[in-house]
Formats: sequence, structure tokens, C-alpha cells
Amino acid sequence: MALIVQKYGGTSVANIQRIRNVAERVAKFKMLGHQVVVVLSAMSGETNRLIALAREIQAEPDPRELDMLVSTGEQVTIALLAMALKDLGLKARSYTGSQVRILTDNAFTKARILQIDENRIREDLDAGRVVVVAGFQGVDENGNITTLGRGGSDTTGVALAAALKADECQIYTDVDGVYTTDPRIVPQARRLDTITFEEMLEMASLGSKVLQIRSVEFAGKYKVKLRVLSSFEEEGDGTLITFEEEDKSMEQAIISGIAFNRDEAKITVLGVPDTPGVAYQILGPVADANIDVDMIIQNTGANQTTDFTFTVNRNEYNRTMTLLEELKVKIGAREIIGDTSIAKVSIIGVGMRSHVGIASTMFKTLAAENINIRMISTSEIKISVVIDEKYLELAVRVLHKAFDLENGKTGAKFD
Amino acid sequence: MALIVQKYGGTSVANIQRIRNVAERVAKFKMLGHQVVVVLSAMSGETNRLIALAREIQAEPDPRELDMLVSTGEQVTIALLAMALKDLGLKARSYTGSQVRILTDNAFTKARILQIDENRIREDLDAGRVVVVAGFQGVDENGNITTLGRGGSDTTGVALAAALKADECQIYTDVDGVYTTDPRIVPQARRLDTITFEEMLEMASLGSKVLQIRSVEFAGKYKVKLRVLSSFEEEGDGTLITFEEEDKSMEQAIISGIAFNRDEAKITVLGVPDTPGVAYQILGPVADANIDVDMIIQNTGANQTTDFTFTVNRNEYNRTMTLLEELKVKIGAREIIGDTSIAKVSIIGVGMRSHVGIASTMFKTLAAENINIRMISTSEIKISVVIDEKYLELAVRVLHKAFDLENGKTGAKFD
Repeated sequence: MALIVQKYGGTSVANIQRIRNVAERVAKFKMLGHQVVVVLSAMSGETNRLIALAREIQAEPDPRELDMLVSTGEQVTIALLAMALKDLGLKARSYTGSQVRILTDNAFTKARILQIDENRIREDLDAGRVVVVAGFQGVDENGNITTLGRGGSDTTGVALAAALKADECQIYTDVDGVYTTDPRIVPQARRLDTITFEEMLEMASLGSKVLQIRSVEFAGKYKVKLRVLSSFEEEGDGTLITFEEEDKSMEQAIISGIAFNRDEAKITVLGVPDTPGVAYQILGPVADANIDVDMIIQNTGANQTTDFTFTVNRNEYNRTMTLLEELKVKIGAREIIGDTSIAKVSIIGVGMRSHVGIASTMFKTLAAENINIRMISTSEIKISVVIDEKYLELAVRVLHKAFDLENGKTGAKFD
Repeated sequence: MALIVQKYGGTSVANIQRIRNVAERVAKFKMLGHQVVVVLSAMSGETNRLIALAREIQAEPDPRELDMLVSTGEQVTIALLAMALKDLGLKARSYTGSQVRILTDNAFTKARILQIDENRIREDLDAGRVVVVAGFQGVDENGNITTLGRGGSDTTGVALAAALKADECQIYTDVDGVYTTDPRIVPQARRLDTITFEEMLEMASLGSKVLQIRSVEFAGKYKVKLRVLSSFEEEGDGTLITFEEEDKSMEQAIISGIAFNRDEAKITVLGVPDTPGVAYQILGPVADANIDVDMIIQNTGANQTTDFTFTVNRNEYNRTMTLLEELKVKIGAREIIGDTSIAKVSIIGVGMRSHVGIASTMFKTLAAENINIRMISTSEIKISVVIDEKYLELAVRVLHKAFDLENGKTGAKFD
């Protein structure tokens, strides 16, 4: 008997028939003698519908009230799934994030989980019940409803699996695993049987929509065995996210996949004095405004001034620009410019640690297509470039081919 | 400075524009220096939409999960109204029933309020905030979400007014007050400026849809000043529900109004032994199944047997019949018959206490139209009859005329 946490995304619960299908899948696992905790997203489209309602009232909806509003989406699906499970003769009970007490901080619309009280769930499991928990939501210490941000249901699933020390956390989605890149852009993209935790972390953070980054961080921190599966197929083992130490014996591919992201905007602060503390003067207020910054680059320029460039989520672009315009005089900047028509493309693989020449192959491949690179950023297992958004698909296709990802070989084509 | 609780029904918050209108009305009261607590229903149609979803899954949805589901309706409107208030520059905060801690028993779908923790609300009011509370819902002592049954938002409003010792509880609805009867049936129906608490109690319990009965009971018990107003009109004082002692000096109308109800079904248990305890043997199990019984009549028949008739809500008819069929042998009944095509019509007025002949006028008026009376039940201030549903409109019209209600005189036409 195993304890399994299963998370189903919005397309898996998009209508009554699909909710019934989820119930039947859960029932199969129960029949095999497993204990099952189910985490659900809202019906696909529902969260967007609710946000649109809010925006009809306030251009920038109050964050606390927005969380109050959108958290209803999962509350609807958990109740319906509990009914569907009961209709199959199973014992089941649904809980909101607040009821299970998924305690978070109070950063509305992007809260972080601090603690989960797993006792109530364990009592239900011991009583033979399937426990159905609303994903994406929690409660702060004052009892206010919070949400974890887009894709937060994955995080709920993994956090519950960690708290309950579950044997496996299964993420059911509309794809059957993690691919070398998005098959809509590269039809030859190949499903990976396994991917290391670190690679998955880069894939998730760089825009692969399969798993939310925080869920992967959680899984890594608490060593949760994570598997991505399709909720629309009966068979298939999906992609298992492994921990590197388990994989030492395996031959590693140099590059595992190509991730990309159109959600960012680039902001450059031109001509600030090149003195210690300037980065903090610029990014401190941005962080205080709860705006996440991704890539950061600083170039030394002429006349003891420097240009400072960073990227933020496109939704935060206007807010960030307004904030910086207010700071402009204080930080002594000459000009602040921005660009929202950018895209980020990254190649990822633990294998690149022990291989040289990956970066040069990447740059050569892009240059051959006349694609100008605007920013570069690297880590041990990934290289990211920012390019004009219009070249995104082209860049992903030529890189996928250059690293021979369709054949699962280990980058045979570079020098 | 007064503390006012305002409750808005589903039609008053049916869309974004109407929610804005509510916000503007609330703002007016705030400008006058009042403290305002707002209680909201779900958008009209939303609760029915959610129930329909549930019934697609389970013919008789699990009550706990149904409450989990339908309570999302008010959660949406409170969040949107709080945003609309903030958009007008007011401070506001929304709360679910669970957050304010509207503690109820655990009778899902028809829970009763046990206690309200008013401290959190008072703190917000003292900080200058408008407090927006989800109507219709509460929480049991185990943290499960409960709902108060149809129209329960009125009860939430009155209960909050009682807990906060509010100066007035205003119920905004799609009618501008309490009428002598339903104007859709009798166009000459007249709006009452005042109605006594006792009369309102009878009006509400007998099917007038203006206020839910439990809200009126609450108002009476805690002496909450209650006013029914239209949310679609700028002016007008609506109908004030008075306490009789305040009205002793006033000339009372004999009959204040005519209420009716199509929601009931009649069940007759034929030929049960006429022994002590038989009523309990029949109604005990019905009460245990949480089915409300309205009228009860017992006729002594031949051969030491008796016929026992009572009415239940039509929604509970099948469940009650099934229950009684199972009991049939145990209680020694000959047969159990039922009728769902009935309607109840009642005339109401505190004035009838001191006047004779009201009942005979009622019966004569119905007889003149050949309307057969199936059951009769009386109280100090009302007379109810059950008739065939098809005669309902006719009965209401002829009674409205017989008691001269369109002219506000005191029943001039009876002997």
C-alpha cells in the first residue's frame, strides 16, 4: 500500500465528464489498496474568467480581494470531484486550502507555503477516505485567503506530498510528460523518460509550462518523487523527475531540452553612476514592490557611468517602469528604456558541466540564422539568451536540430 | 453616526454594473458618517447554476459537498463589491462566513446560526472600513462550510445586525417593500408602510418571498429594526417592520395581507391505530431525517383508527414518501397517499384578534367561487387554507377584494 498524491490541472477537470474520468482514475488506485490525496486546479478558463470580472471593476484589482475571488475556482472543482467519488461508492471529503490549513505568508496573489497541518488529512486517509484538496490556495496567519500564483496547484500537490511523506506525487496534465521542447513548435520533440531534478528546475523556471518552478523546488528540497503524466491516456509512465545521485551510473545526455519564455520584458537603466550600491539602489525598490526580477546584466560604460539591464514579467512591466521613473533623479540615471517584444531561449542539460563548446555551438547556430542576441546568462547546467520575440520559433527549431534532440543522442553535431 | 447593516439580494448584484450601483449606495451612507456592514447574496442564477452542476454528478448531491460548492457564489460577489468600494476610494474588506466566524450547527444545506464573533468586524468598522460579508453561509465547529438554506442571506444580515447591535438592518431587494399580496397576481396590491413583526413572521413563513422566515424570527428575538427597500430606486422608505408595543396607539388594519405558497406537498397516512403516540411515531422519523413539516392535521375516523395529514416542502416529498413506506408496517397504516398539486393561501393580520367573522368571510368568499378547501389551520393572527393549486390565483384575487386590501381599509365587506 502506497500513499499517492495526484494533482490534476484545469483541462483535466474542465467539465463534468472529465471530472468523472478523474474520479474513475482515483478509484482504480483505491482498488489497488493505495491511499490517495487529490489536488485540483479550477476548471480551465475559470480563473481567467474571474480575473476578467475583477478587472471590469478595478484596472489593478486589490490583491487580497482578487485572492478571495479566484480561490472559488478550485472550491467548485473539489466539491464536484468529491461528489463524483461518492457517486462511485467511495468515501471522500473535500477541503479548501484554508481548511487543511495550508499556511502561507500574506503576499497575496503570490503567497508562499509556510506549513501544512497534515493531521486532518491523515485521519481521513486512515478512515479510508479519498481526500480532495483545493490547489493554488492557502491561508495566512490572520485567516485571509491567499493564492500561490499561476500554476500554484503543482506546488500544493508537492507540498502535500512532502508533508505526508507520500510515496509519489503524480502531476496529471494535458501532456504525457516532459519533452525536449514544445512539440507545437518542433514536431520532432521527444518525450523524456527521466529528467534530473536540476534540469527540471531550469526547464520549469525558463518557461516550460509543464510544472511550476516552485513545485520543483519543493520536490527537490523534500526529495519528493515527482512524475508527470497525461490525464487523457490510460497507459504510459510519463516522465519521472530523478535526483542526480540515483542517476550516476546512467549515460547523461549533454543537452536534455530547450525551454523558452515569452512572458518577460526587458528594462535598461542608462547612464547611472558606476558606484558601489547602484544595483541595490535600483533593484531594492523593485523587490520591495514584490516584483520578481529574472536576468540581470550590468555593463560598464564610459564616463564612470554604467548601463543596468534586467527582465521582469511582462505583467509587471508598466508598474516597474513607473517605479523607476520616480527613482530616476535619485539614482542619477540618464534614461530608462524598455522592450516588451523579447523572448528568452535556453538550452539545458546536466551533461554540459563536463563538456566544452556548448555555448559556442548555440551562438553559432543562432548567428547562422542572423538572430541577434540581446542578453546572455549562464548557469552550470543552462545557457539562456534573450532575442527578439519574432525569432523565437526559428531559434528553438534550429537549436533542437543542432543538438540532435529528436534522436536522443548527446549533441553529436557541434565542434 | 449610526451602524447600519445592508443586505443586497441576488438581483441587486447580478452583474458588474449593479455591483457598482451597490457600492455607490454604500458610499452615500459612508459619506453621511455611518458605519456600514454589507451582506451579499450570490449573483442571481449562480446558486441554481452550481446546484445544476452538482446534480449532473449526483442525483442527490452530498450535502457537505453541496455547501462547499454553492458557498462560492457569495464569495465571488463579496470580493467584487470590496473592489468596487475600493475603486470609489473607500476602505473595505470582504469576509466569508467562515472568516467572520458565523458559527452554525452542522445541518448542511439548512444550518442554523449559533454564534457570531463580531470583534473582527468591529475592529474593521472602527478603522473606517466597510465590511462586506458573504450571506447564506457559515462554518460548523469542525471548520466545515455550511449554508443556511434558500434566502439565508437575510438571516445573515439580521444576525449580524443583532450581534453588532446595529441601529437598522436594511434588506435591499427587487421590490420596494412588503405588499398586501403579490402584485403579479393582484395588480391592486398595495405597499404597506409598516407591518408588525408578528404579521411579517406569518407573511414570511407562508410564502411571501420578501424575507426569509428565520431572518424575521431573528429580528423579533433580538429586536432588530428591519426595513425592506428596493435596490433599484433612489428614494423611498420601503416597509418598516415594527414591534407591536410601539404601535398600540395606531389604528390597526384587521387584515394586513394575503400570503401564499406553492412549494408544499400534502401527505396523508390513512388508517393508523388511534392510540397515544401515533403522531410521534410518524413525525419522529421525519424530523430525524431533517425534513421540516408545516401543517399537521389529525382526523378521528372509524374503528379506532385515524387519518393523519401533514405538509412538507415539495422537494422533500419523494424522500418523505419513501421514509413512510418503510415505516408503514411498523406504524400499522392502511395506506399512504400524497398530493403535490396543492397550494396554501393565508390571510394575516394582528387585527383579527379582536374581530370575529374573519374566518367565515374567508370561507364564504372561497365557496362562492366553488373552491374546495382541503385543510385549514389557524393561529391568533392568521388563517391558512390548502386548496388545489389551480385555484391559487383566483383565491388570492377574490380574498384581496373581499377584505378591501387595495384601499387600505379594515375589511369593510364582511358580515
